Amino acid sequence: RKGKMAKSTQLIDNEVFRAYATYAGIVLLKMMLMSLITAYFRMTRKAFANPEDAASLGKGESAKKYVRTDADVERVRRGHLNDLENIVPFVGIGLLYALSGPELSSALLHFRIFAGARILHTFAYLLALPQPSRGLSWAVGYSVTFSMAYRALKAVWLL
Amino acid sequence: RKGKMAKSTQLIDNEVFRAYATYAGIVLLKMMLMSLITAYFRMTRKAFANPEDAASLGKGESAKKYVRTDADVERVRRGHLNDLENIVPFVGIGLLYALSGPELSSALLHFRIFAGARILHTFAYLLALPQPSRGLSWAVGYSVTFSMAYRALKAVWLL
Amino acid sequence: RKGKMAKSTQLIDNEVFRAYATYAGIVLLKMMLMSLITAYFRMTRKAFANPEDAASLGKGESAKKYVRTDADVERVRRGHLNDLENIVPFVGIGLLYALSGPELSSALLHFRIFAGARILHTFAYLLALPQPSRGLSWAVGYSVTFSMAYRALKAVWLL
Repeated sequence: RKGKMAKSTQLIDNEVFRAYATYAGIVLLKMMLMSLITAYFRMTRKAFANPEDAASLGKGESAKKYVRTDADVERVRRGHLNDLENIVPFVGIGLLYALSGPELSSALLHFRIFAGARILHTFAYLLALPQPSRGLSWAVGYSVTFSMAYRALKAVWLL
Repeated sequence: RKGKMAKSTQLIDNEVFRAYATYAGIVLLKMMLMSLITAYFRMTRKAFANPEDAASLGKGESAKKYVRTDADVERVRRGHLNDLENIVPFVGIGLLYALSGPELSSALLHFRIFAGARILHTFAYLLALPQPSRGLSWAVGYSVTFSMAYRALKAVWLL
Repeated sequence: RKGKMAKSTQLIDNEVFRAYATYAGIVLLKMMLMSLITAYFRMTRKAFANPEDAASLGKGESAKKYVRTDADVERVRRGHLNDLENIVPFVGIGLLYALSGPELSSALLHFRIFAGARILHTFAYLLALPQPSRGLSWAVGYSVTFSMAYRALKAVWLL
């Protein structure tokens, strides 16, 4: 029984923490996917940021012309930066929220809506869908993070 | 008594962790505010990064002229990126430091100075205050994070 | 004995967590170093992003010419952003992985390879080493993070 008691204080046995870990893992993997999409567009569009990256396409001057920006590459990069700006607060504030003792159902609601909103945001950005599709999906994710911050700060507040 | 003992091993009951969570939440919310300020300047300056964002301002060619950079928008964006570069290490290293068992007074000193420095940094950046106001506020936050990293690594070091 | 039992549930006494904290601290400090290298190049190349930063080099028009981009500064900035894009997922997913109860030897292998790969990546980027040196070091770090995500999600999965 003592062993069980000790085990029950492990974070990994806490259902809210497991839900947090699952969704934090999913959105971080989604963010990592942006690197692969950027690399794909850089290679197919032949648009590189560094001379050494373009070197395989030709020697000297003929390679230099591939050190350039491309509208599609820049679009993916903006989506990636937007992920950093929004997923970093989710991962940080979400951890504090998960440790503040919320109901599992309430926590799952926050995590699922955030993950869904960020996946929609990526589609809206990469496919250049008409607004307000991207704006709305951004605002939903932002609001969920704000709601978690409010609940976490109310529980832990020690200034 | 057993219930109480178990409870006392919860992170949420640790005062240093609660202080960390409070200040990590505050600086992450401050960072999130930069998104709203960017959106405000993009709309008032009519300077957008994507054609679909400018589409509401006109059709075809008349909308294209609003896909442009603006000095005020770029200034907020640099401030936002500087937040990412500095608040991410604070949140990560601060968690390790909080879990390494520092005195509450010492931890509060680190967290308060960092949060104050980053708020001053934002004012210095957005209002374009003369240097070294921005440089100094950046250096103070940087030094606090470095101090926390030194203390945390000394306590946990396992290479 | 009770005191000891309680203590053994502290994260700081968990060897895998201590290894995680050590390597997360190291790669976050490495990322912070990029700020200092950027500042060094901005000052030696006299290439600033803000008029108030260039003001010390001259008055009015003579200072304005130093508000410009420089190839070396931009290279360090790309390296810094690449760190954010890769070290943020490592720190987040690594924490979940460390808490999911892996073997110490397996965890150390992941953390050491990641830290080594990111240090090589920085050298490859700043010295503009021929490809595929930078590409390979990036891919190794990316794969390690992916492997940790797979193991962590398998252990915690609660959708």
